Amino acid sequence: MDKRNRLIVAMDVTERDRAVTIAEDISEYVDAIKVGYPLVLAEGIAVIGDLARFAPVIADLKIADIPNTDRLICEQVFRAGADAVIVHGFTGQDSLRACVDVADGFGKDVYVVAEMSHPGGVEFFQPVADTIAEMALTSGAHGIVAPATRPERVKHLRSIIGNEMSIISPGVGAQGGSAHDVIQAGADWVIVGRSIYSSKSPKDSASSLVSEIRS
Amino acid sequence: MDKRNRLIVAMDVTERDRAVTIAEDISEYVDAIKVGYPLVLAEGIAVIGDLARFAPVIADLKIADIPNTDRLICEQVFRAGADAVIVHGFTGQDSLRACVDVADGFGKDVYVVAEMSHPGGVEFFQPVADTIAEMALTSGAHGIVAPATRPERVKHLRSIIGNEMSIISPGVGAQGGSAHDVIQAGADWVIVGRSIYSSKSPKDSASSLVSEIRS
Repeated sequence: MDKRNRLIVAMDVTERDRAVTIAEDISEYVDAIKVGYPLVLAEGIAVIGDLARFAPVIADLKIADIPNTDRLICEQVFRAGADAVIVHGFTGQDSLRACVDVADGFGKDVYVVAEMSHPGGVEFFQPVADTIAEMALTSGAHGIVAPATRPERVKHLRSIIGNEMSIISPGVGAQGGSAHDVIQAGADWVIVGRSIYSSKSPKDSASSLVSEIRS
Repeated sequence: MDKRNRLIVAMDVTERDRAVTIAEDISEYVDAIKVGYPLVLAEGIAVIGDLARFAPVIADLKIADIPNTDRLICEQVFRAGADAVIVHGFTGQDSLRACVDVADGFGKDVYVVAEMSHPGGVEFFQPVADTIAEMALTSGAHGIVAPATRPERVKHLRSIIGNEMSIISPGVGAQGGSAHDVIQAGADWVIVGRSIYSSKSPKDSASSLVSEIRS
């Protein structure tokens, strides 16, 4: 994944055609397209391949099952054309390891959720975020996911994982996070959804975000 | 879901036709069919409706995202014909609540993962299992998922949630749990996968398991 624009779009729409139209429109401004289950369930896993024609696809499936099930999910996702998958660390080392092993076999990447941006994320998640980030570091994962709504946490998590791993950071825009602040705090990419796909001109919105990030 | 046989099959195959054949074969012995992402991704979400012709379907998607994404996933799952969905509790109250709200709207059920049966389940999960079970109790969820491989934990979790909620319990058979022991410990249903679907005669295996449970 090329670190050119430092912008990833969260394609949280549920219609394939709309997703493809937006992807084509904004492809020069985004380094990757993040897709989740709402779109994959609505349109089938082949939508990953449809979008991968425009930019690398990160399958944000927040995988959180036993190792064997995780393995089966990852195999399907990479076969469908994804460049990376997002996995929960909460299910432990063996589950995470199963995902990293499959990703390695395909020459693809795993990002581990270290912390989440919604209010409920502070209840069970935040107390173990540091330990999950440490586990991600030793697991062979490519990076972590940390919330743009809490740049001080991104900074702290960066201090744990060092500079070899990437941080991708959702929560910019509609959720209140600032692209500039979270990049300053140590994120490599910001992830933006609604502010792009619900915009009158997704292209203009993506272009403005890239300018903000570069400033 | 009818508590007649106290047996749920985990339909962890990835081909629709095989799943349908097995479901038809064993339908008189199982109270529900649990399906996960490996099958749903391989064959599309409509496979839920295909299997629901033979028994109620529990969609074991271990949903673990922010509230809005959880809501979108649940809506698709219930629209496809599922009778219940399995949700993670570690993403916090708001995420769980989003799933319960959608389930209530459809008149369907939510089961919360309180603990997992794989080795990695003891790392982050078990320390918060009791708190997650308490949260499930107050959330309006229908039941919890607790591992048959640790019947003492099932007994303990039953003491937390009381008798109004159901416990469904995976890990019987290939993973080492005993149907008899976990029912004694307080589970309402045991969930069995490989010992049924990989058997020469899934029907005979399901029938034997029902006899063991009744004994």
